[in-house]
Amino acid sequence: MSTIALLTDFGLQDPFVGVMKGVIAGLAPQADVIDLCHGVPPQDVRAGALYLRASTAYFPDNALFVGVVDPGVGSARRILFARTKRHWFLAPDNGLLSWLTEPVVEWRVVENAKLFLPKVSSTFHGRDIFAPVAARLAAGLDPHDLGPQLEQPAVALPWPKDEILAIDRFGNAITSIDRPVKTVRYKGKTIAVKRTYADAAEGETLAVYGSYGLLELSVRNGDFAARCAASRGEIIDAGK
Amino acid sequence: MSTIALLTDFGLQDPFVGVMKGVIAGLAPQADVIDLCHGVPPQDVRAGALYLRASTAYFPDNALFVGVVDPGVGSARRILFARTKRHWFLAPDNGLLSWLTEPVVEWRVVENAKLFLPKVSSTFHGRDIFAPVAARLAAGLDPHDLGPQLEQPAVALPWPKDEILAIDRFGNAITSIDRPVKTVRYKGKTIAVKRTYADAAEGETLAVYGSYGLLELSVRNGDFAARCAASRGEIIDAGK
Amino acid sequence: MSTIALLTDFGLQDPFVGVMKGVIAGLAPQADVIDLCHGVPPQDVRAGALYLRASTAYFPDNALFVGVVDPGVGSARRILFARTKRHWFLAPDNGLLSWLTEPVVEWRVVENAKLFLPKVSSTFHGRDIFAPVAARLAAGLDPHDLGPQLEQPAVALPWPKDEILAIDRFGNAITSIDRPVKTVRYKGKTIAVKRTYADAAEGETLAVYGSYGLLELSVRNGDFAARCAASRGEIIDAGK
Repeated sequence: MSTIALLTDFGLQDPFVGVMKGVIAGLAPQADVIDLCHGVPPQDVRAGALYLRASTAYFPDNALFVGVVDPGVGSARRILFARTKRHWFLAPDNGLLSWLTEPVVEWRVVENAKLFLPKVSSTFHGRDIFAPVAARLAAGLDPHDLGPQLEQPAVALPWPKDEILAIDRFGNAITSIDRPVKTVRYKGKTIAVKRTYADAAEGETLAVYGSYGLLELSVRNGDFAARCAASRGEIIDAGK
Repeated sequence: MSTIALLTDFGLQDPFVGVMKGVIAGLAPQADVIDLCHGVPPQDVRAGALYLRASTAYFPDNALFVGVVDPGVGSARRILFARTKRHWFLAPDNGLLSWLTEPVVEWRVVENAKLFLPKVSSTFHGRDIFAPVAARLAAGLDPHDLGPQLEQPAVALPWPKDEILAIDRFGNAITSIDRPVKTVRYKGKTIAVKRTYADAAEGETLAVYGSYGLLELSVRNGDFAARCAASRGEIIDAGK
Repeated sequence: MSTIALLTDFGLQDPFVGVMKGVIAGLAPQADVIDLCHGVPPQDVRAGALYLRASTAYFPDNALFVGVVDPGVGSARRILFARTKRHWFLAPDNGLLSWLTEPVVEWRVVENAKLFLPKVSSTFHGRDIFAPVAARLAAGLDPHDLGPQLEQPAVALPWPKDEILAIDRFGNAITSIDRPVKTVRYKGKTIAVKRTYADAAEGETLAVYGSYGLLELSVRNGDFAARCAASRGEIIDAGK
């Protein structure tokens, strides 16, 4: 393994992500570190789970995904290692790995403190636990050394019923709808599903199965979320 | 070639850029991927063209620039390959390559679908076409295999006459003026051109030939755009 | 040396950081470039100094830190090279290196223009001086070739007394307090110091020794800065 993909809610205005990379560079200088995304809204575990769901299939075999969206940092919440047929994962046991597109074939609790930094803070496990453990795995550590196997995680999030899960940079509202529908109702308006943005007129509202493989509400070359004051968690009426 | 430079309007809050890097890591693990910029304002092809104009000269020979500012994604707009003496480019045929500082010596249409991901979405060609094609070029693919040569692109943007092209992070207003002038008029005020910021007093308004090789309107250690409510597209009176 | 860590106030919406990486890729293709942080508030030298203080210990030996928070660019301010036992640094002589956690054992003035880009602008020394000099150091240049040794820098910032130094992405207010205290007073309220976020109730205000090794004012799973309109420079009453 040599690709480590980082997913956090740290943003990039602070040195948090840079410091994690410093730790990794020291312990696994040969690893190829990719920023999957650091723009998960603060403490939004569901958005993090969604981003992982939409992304892992596009990464090479044996990539290690490190997910740090961790409102429970410093509490007794566990840290998990997971393995699917193609990929490895590290994440808090808070549901972040609930929506992976491949089944998990092995769960472990990460609890071998010898693998952590010598001093573990109560606020920044990304730096003190996740980064060094990821680096050691990338450098060849056997997952057996992380800690005991686990039947299943404590937290598993159900897939939400027909609602807005996230708003992207362009103002598209990504819904949880992945079944084929022809129209949806939202805030009293009916929105037609089109094949692509270009099938709508400039400035027209449309729905499209987008980059996430999910139905998105959009405005052709405009900003749906701004126009309709859309926000995460709102219910969409898509029929059944 | 081993450097791939990415320029998009995707921002970094979503996993779009990370997913493109995942695709590249799988097909060209040896490539050195550099984020040229992902902060192009959404669908602002001119800003993207400006950023390329200001940047390519500083990159090593044989670097491949991948530009994805693509309001026409999913439509019949073509994807272009271009080659200058020093560099290679992939971009939609929408004007994004209009302002390169070196002449293009070869244009091609990218249409060989065998080089794309097996399933091409109608909304995310960055992931499904640009990333895999870039990776294959970095891994040694002959540009002949991309598709047929082209006389010239469908869209070529003219260089704009004396206006604000972009606002940078510090609030400087980058204009299209590259000829030597001594003063400019903007919103009823005359602004003197200085050699450097330090030639103005703290908080003074000035103009300076800046990092883009273009005249910029600035406030010494302040934010010109905020102070003057400056925005893209506004005309500057700089004489002739 | 092969790790170059970049710290700037350039943000990521413009191509400034990408261009610096282009310059480095041309001169030191083998260097491993890490973005320590580009979100230093514009021209906030103290925030930059704080981020360096909190980060360098986590980077590998021989890493080179390039700090470009440079309100005096284009003036006569000098550029410094510094060396501690473990690390190397390039920065303007404006206090950015004031709060390093290891003593500086060698200072030099960077003034050998043969190491710069052929044309040095008056506005973007990150591209024209810092990037090429960093790349040459990473490629083996002897620091003696940079310029003469220096007794000490012109600017050294004192560590501030009990105030808010920075606000992070989560709205935590990082103070300058590193001694042990049990409560602080801020805007008429008493805030108790807890061991970790999880020791406070959901939505409760607390103080905690955080990721910087400094006391932070926080709201459990909330945004302290937004709730209390906190901003940089405000005084905290922490007793003595």
